[in-house]
Amino acid sequence: MYQAILDHIRKYVVLTQEEEELLCQNLEYKKHPKKEFLLEAGKICNRKLNEQIIHFAIENWWIADQDSLMTGQPSACTIQAIEETEVLLLPEKNKADLFRQVPVLETYFALIMRKAFVAAQRRLGYIFNMTDEERFRHFSSLFPEFMQRVPQYMLASYLGFTPQFMSRLRAKKN
Amino acid sequence: MYQAILDHIRKYVVLTQEEEELLCQNLEYKKHPKKEFLLEAGKICNRKLNEQIIHFAIENWWIADQDSLMTGQPSACTIQAIEETEVLLLPEKNKADLFRQVPVLETYFALIMRKAFVAAQRRLGYIFNMTDEERFRHFSSLFPEFMQRVPQYMLASYLGFTPQFMSRLRAKKN
Repeated sequence: MYQAILDHIRKYVVLTQEEEELLCQNLEYKKHPKKEFLLEAGKICNRKLNEQIIHFAIENWWIADQDSLMTGQPSACTIQAIEETEVLLLPEKNKADLFRQVPVLETYFALIMRKAFVAAQRRLGYIFNMTDEERFRHFSSLFPEFMQRVPQYMLASYLGFTPQFMSRLRAKKN
Repeated sequence: MYQAILDHIRKYVVLTQEEEELLCQNLEYKKHPKKEFLLEAGKICNRKLNEQIIHFAIENWWIADQDSLMTGQPSACTIQAIEETEVLLLPEKNKADLFRQVPVLETYFALIMRKAFVAAQRRLGYIFNMTDEERFRHFSSLFPEFMQRVPQYMLASYLGFTPQFMSRLRAKKN
């Protein structure tokens, strides 16, 4: 697990062995059974809203409610394990000190945030410029294995479809 | 102009006078008349696509095609001045050296990128969870002056409406 994150970070920046150890000391290893909540939405909202899938996170991905971390407000989001999941958590409170000791990690996280921003912008572009069916085909072509891995109703929600509409698209494809 | 950017950056991080000077030396001042292009889309795409407004940038905002900067591919976007505009450009090629000399600027840009990512995520949330009319009312309540400042057909495109639909919403409001 620690090896996997170091391999991943090495794709972007160079860390000394001492810096790698500092990073690992600041990470918390957690294991979550399927369906367990990693983050539960704050109790601000009393209404039972429709569940909307905003993101998936697979191997080597970071996931967090950046909105809540940035504003300090309780999260309106829930993060749930849809498979048995191992995570390495970098607590927000550790970041400032860690970045001071290992500045290159700030460079790494800035790159990751830039990638996430570009992905969000692309997704907005797909929503505005593609039909629902084009968006489905595009996503299927980019992530064929992932399409098989997650519950279909979650994928439908992520893409902004009803499960019924997605079933029809899948049927057309086969 | 330089004073404005320094005042803005001081809201997020502390720079010494020497660091402020290093930053200013790396910025290029440009003035663009109304309608001039700051960035023109690459010639990859032969089709004349419908214009889709992705972003506006007002005072103290950074704007760039991060996708193109990140991937090194020609931009698919155009940036155009809709008013007479003064900009300070930080050339991508200057960034690595500047961040090495003034590491706190990397912290600043990471914060700005995080804010941009959160804004993009919120926008995705509005698209999925609000009706077109709710989205219009929400945007109007957040940015009433901005609504008066930009051409209405651009605002309609940004919000994902036809100009006709937006005219009807505005008429309802008044």
